[in-house]
Amino acid sequence: MISFSSDYTTGAHPAILDALLRTNLEPQPGYGSDEYSKSAAKKIREACSAPKAEVFFLAGGTQTNQVVIDMLLAPYEGVIAAETGHIAAHEAGAIERGGHKVLTLPQKDGKICAEDIERMIEAFYEDENHEHMVYPGMVYLSFPTEYGTLYTKRELSAIAAVCHRHHYRIPLFIDGARLGYGLASPACDLTLADIASLADVFYIGGTKVGALCGEAVVFPKGDLPKAKIAQIKQHGALLAKGRLLGVQFDTLFTDGLYFEIGRHAMAMAEKLRALFLEKGYRLFLDSPTNQIFVVLDDGKMQELAAKVSFGYWEKFDEHRTVVRFATSWSTTEENLADLASIL
Amino acid sequence: MISFSSDYTTGAHPAILDALLRTNLEPQPGYGSDEYSKSAAKKIREACSAPKAEVFFLAGGTQTNQVVIDMLLAPYEGVIAAETGHIAAHEAGAIERGGHKVLTLPQKDGKICAEDIERMIEAFYEDENHEHMVYPGMVYLSFPTEYGTLYTKRELSAIAAVCHRHHYRIPLFIDGARLGYGLASPACDLTLADIASLADVFYIGGTKVGALCGEAVVFPKGDLPKAKIAQIKQHGALLAKGRLLGVQFDTLFTDGLYFEIGRHAMAMAEKLRALFLEKGYRLFLDSPTNQIFVVLDDGKMQELAAKVSFGYWEKFDEHRTVVRFATSWSTTEENLADLASIL
Amino acid sequence: MISFSSDYTTGAHPAILDALLRTNLEPQPGYGSDEYSKSAAKKIREACSAPKAEVFFLAGGTQTNQVVIDMLLAPYEGVIAAETGHIAAHEAGAIERGGHKVLTLPQKDGKICAEDIERMIEAFYEDENHEHMVYPGMVYLSFPTEYGTLYTKRELSAIAAVCHRHHYRIPLFIDGARLGYGLASPACDLTLADIASLADVFYIGGTKVGALCGEAVVFPKGDLPKAKIAQIKQHGALLAKGRLLGVQFDTLFTDGLYFEIGRHAMAMAEKLRALFLEKGYRLFLDSPTNQIFVVLDDGKMQELAAKVSFGYWEKFDEHRTVVRFATSWSTTEENLADLASIL
Amino acid sequence: MISFSSDYTTGAHPAILDALLRTNLEPQPGYGSDEYSKSAAKKIREACSAPKAEVFFLAGGTQTNQVVIDMLLAPYEGVIAAETGHIAAHEAGAIERGGHKVLTLPQKDGKICAEDIERMIEAFYEDENHEHMVYPGMVYLSFPTEYGTLYTKRELSAIAAVCHRHHYRIPLFIDGARLGYGLASPACDLTLADIASLADVFYIGGTKVGALCGEAVVFPKGDLPKAKIAQIKQHGALLAKGRLLGVQFDTLFTDGLYFEIGRHAMAMAEKLRALFLEKGYRLFLDSPTNQIFVVLDDGKMQELAAKVSFGYWEKFDEHRTVVRFATSWSTTEENLADLASIL
Repeated sequence: MISFSSDYTTGAHPAILDALLRTNLEPQPGYGSDEYSKSAAKKIREACSAPKAEVFFLAGGTQTNQVVIDMLLAPYEGVIAAETGHIAAHEAGAIERGGHKVLTLPQKDGKICAEDIERMIEAFYEDENHEHMVYPGMVYLSFPTEYGTLYTKRELSAIAAVCHRHHYRIPLFIDGARLGYGLASPACDLTLADIASLADVFYIGGTKVGALCGEAVVFPKGDLPKAKIAQIKQHGALLAKGRLLGVQFDTLFTDGLYFEIGRHAMAMAEKLRALFLEKGYRLFLDSPTNQIFVVLDDGKMQELAAKVSFGYWEKFDEHRTVVRFATSWSTTEENLADLASIL
Repeated sequence: MISFSSDYTTGAHPAILDALLRTNLEPQPGYGSDEYSKSAAKKIREACSAPKAEVFFLAGGTQTNQVVIDMLLAPYEGVIAAETGHIAAHEAGAIERGGHKVLTLPQKDGKICAEDIERMIEAFYEDENHEHMVYPGMVYLSFPTEYGTLYTKRELSAIAAVCHRHHYRIPLFIDGARLGYGLASPACDLTLADIASLADVFYIGGTKVGALCGEAVVFPKGDLPKAKIAQIKQHGALLAKGRLLGVQFDTLFTDGLYFEIGRHAMAMAEKLRALFLEKGYRLFLDSPTNQIFVVLDDGKMQELAAKVSFGYWEKFDEHRTVVRFATSWSTTEENLADLASIL
Repeated sequence: MISFSSDYTTGAHPAILDALLRTNLEPQPGYGSDEYSKSAAKKIREACSAPKAEVFFLAGGTQTNQVVIDMLLAPYEGVIAAETGHIAAHEAGAIERGGHKVLTLPQKDGKICAEDIERMIEAFYEDENHEHMVYPGMVYLSFPTEYGTLYTKRELSAIAAVCHRHHYRIPLFIDGARLGYGLASPACDLTLADIASLADVFYIGGTKVGALCGEAVVFPKGDLPKAKIAQIKQHGALLAKGRLLGVQFDTLFTDGLYFEIGRHAMAMAEKLRALFLEKGYRLFLDSPTNQIFVVLDDGKMQELAAKVSFGYWEKFDEHRTVVRFATSWSTTEENLADLASIL
Repeated sequence: MISFSSDYTTGAHPAILDALLRTNLEPQPGYGSDEYSKSAAKKIREACSAPKAEVFFLAGGTQTNQVVIDMLLAPYEGVIAAETGHIAAHEAGAIERGGHKVLTLPQKDGKICAEDIERMIEAFYEDENHEHMVYPGMVYLSFPTEYGTLYTKRELSAIAAVCHRHHYRIPLFIDGARLGYGLASPACDLTLADIASLADVFYIGGTKVGALCGEAVVFPKGDLPKAKIAQIKQHGALLAKGRLLGVQFDTLFTDGLYFEIGRHAMAMAEKLRALFLEKGYRLFLDSPTNQIFVVLDDGKMQELAAKVSFGYWEKFDEHRTVVRFATSWSTTEENLADLASIL
């Protein structure tokens, strides 16, 4: 059965498996001090035009959110996020496990805006009782968002400006679990260097963009908190064979593979979107990246589910459901043709 | 340069890379619900002679210790361990991050004994002030230990009996990060089925026994705590591409590969040990598994370090150091010959 | 200057100080095992018509919420509360510090309703991805609420029914920081025995109802979690001189003093409310307990603030502010007369 | 029955009850902003000869240890303490609940020494694997210790020097739960100003030195961490009626009452010690403060227990037990005479 259920249903891009095979017998030191992790970090610094950046690698997205947030927040601080943000809704309380409240803001198509963030921070400091409340200590947003939407350069710059403007200066953290697809979208007016210039910390998602696992955390200004290794280790997030992440990201950032994967998936997504529209399906929202949200009658949904796999998203109304079709590095023209014949 | 510095310096056993390659394009559901994880769990149940066992997979050892301990302990409980136990000494406070104290006992060659455990528990309950203290809630031990030593069947049975004997009944958790090497040691009188029958929970280490990453957690009686997925997710430990772990363990438990890796590394270790003794080196302790601890003059250590890599263990005295040489699935006769010529 | 700024601006009811003085030289064992704590617990069981109830004493409200919630929730569970609930808004992240998410619901006059709670729980279990989310593990509500409003017996019964109806059965926890004022309100159709019969755990507030400090935690069914003392101690919440709490609650529950304090404060509050209405002030909401919320022009607010102290609540609009006037055991007719002349 | 079982068996010094009574009806703002807390802080600054000191008040000792340690340590840091230190042995895991490991050192008569501390810190930084370990982030000691012993000025200065000497510079935290008795001991060569000059943070115990409850936390250099109120609140440690602590410490530091209480209890302790020696009892250790540890045959212990209450300490051997007799502000000559006739 063909699958569009997510961008993590298949294994890794063949170039990654090749590299793992090629380097397999080389002895390498552990815990991220291998030469591939170093090389990958160097290539990422270049790709970000951020020569001072500190880069390290973790295994997955929730883990990365947890480690970064715990590294940067004081115990009495919380993190501002969209109510639909991954850390707010779908991490099983990983942020609270670290002692931090997620301070949620309303969202529009998965996005929060500079005005709401500023209002929340100012309301906090103006409240006479704010010492009895959780301090806003960071802004978290996903690029693309959980709905596959994108912030424009103007929107993101405005948010960064709010974070950095005032006496309270708080870091902006960008969750880039699907960054590759965002950057490759025709609707995107931001480059990787822009992201690195606006964010205080962000990560470049590997798991959903062609790797077996792995996210590259980037502190573009190089202002990494102390005791990095101990902090990662304390989260149970330090792989003994750090080479597994190093080799993968070294490959992804060699000859622009990461961007190529993004472009391929986006090309497939464009065709997929066109296909749904052509066949008269209703899109739930106008998502310009690799995830396409379709509103299906429940009967139709059952029928399709027998022939193609896709992701459940949420109920639309009593008789209709929003489902998600995602493309990835491994989506083929043949997959699209098969789907077309099914639809 | 040849490396004996640890059992995680090279990549994965070739059979594992083959399997990853072979299954790469198959769409599989995420988060551990893929068919390879299911198949691996089934094979592990069989290998353990534990038909009711619940099995799941995590990425690394510290993560596994943290998740299992947090799953099983009440907030007011701590875990009994050797003062040299990995959770006590080398996990950067991962257990305390979960709110739990490590209640340490003295060790001999890395091992704790039933008598000391019983004495600690009884002293706790006899103390009139014990409600002001941390409750002993679990016994943790490593097999092999951090010093490469092994518990005998009698020793382990005695410890299990203490855990299960009294009104307080607490679980016995065995850290099997290097279990494969322990079981393959000529000095071992325990089988995997014995481990499964004595422990309440244990894990079968993959990272150090031929996998790229991964540990298989086994609850032999099937009495897994509720909300397993949420608990793993909350620790940032749930891989989206759970297949990465499933495929590896499915391979390791096909045709006895896991045991074969153990036997190979032990054969190499026996030769390595003989080589050191033959050349007149002093062994720090009589470790019957794949880690050999050698006492070196600091001058000699510098000299050797230029030609072969090994692990720093600890200072022996002012002028001598204990270093570790480890074998693994990838150690070859050629490596040994090279080392012989260097020594 | 006269003060209506809160119900905790003065010391303790004179009967409490008398009792502290009278018992001062008696040696008593520590940590809550003194005879006054035992006697107070017995009187509270009687007042609650809950002969099996387990009762213990803590120092303050946030501490009590934290201890009770941490005692009852599994690590992967969160607590459902109004978005204006004290634990959600004004405890500086004390619940998150314990690792738990506050799952907020919209409120009306500070209250949540059975329908919304049920919808949240059912939506959780119906969501295919719920294992990636925080499990609803408890319902928390305040009686009276943070806005001084009251649940009716019917409303509270409906909420209790939702908590207890389904396979998920979760406890209902009632924050009674101002319980004495709620029970004494003419608008209240619930007795203390009703509260004890509907809640799985609740507390009887002392700090705001005449004590120097102290809250009495009641598990009406007697199903207290294990290791109570250790759990309290671990929260830094175990007073060495537990008698301080015991003597106070023993006094409050002797000859109905707790209820008398409530009635007195409510009589004063009724007059206060009448006074504001008579003078043409606008009430922010119809609060039937001891807190009266008044909308003031900012100019008027400044003017009044020079003569009487009251509490800032929140901005009403650009030029008006909501302020709070509270009565307590120590409010006098004279205070009211003074205020009348000021208004 | 007369009681020597601890220094917290009776209520408060009469002057404290007087002050509570006298100030009872004055309206005061909450949460530590009352005028008595301010006045008490001022008096404590003077008593400490520390004009820049920041002072605030908490309710009990374990709570204070928890709040201070959580305020000062980074998540990856632990606190060095004697294996018999209160935080290591008798706080039910309150420090681990905050995520911090207690790094224990051997003790002699309850004391740790500068050499051992320095060795532990240096060993940590010299260890090539220290990033996998818990960073030493603070030194904690009790003055007097849990065994009633005292550090000399020379010993304490040496410890402070180790804390402050090196690149790692870590704070020295002194638990002064019984500070008043230590300072009043004839064996003490330190003043309160000395303590304030050597420690980075310490607390002046009230609960065990004449108050109903309360400890005064002092940051002598004024370098208090940010968001003090929020941090205290988040620990459930912020009393609404902060006046309860303010009034008590204001009284204790008026006309030297705190020191007078210490002197009285020490005078009683000297007589008590002499009494035991005169009657031929064996002292467990030479404790120069208000706690006297006596070794009793178990039969004798039973016999005495029927007539006088004292504290169980620990088993001495199979047939003997160490028990504790403590004096306090409320111990009288009559109590001593009664005990003499019993012995």
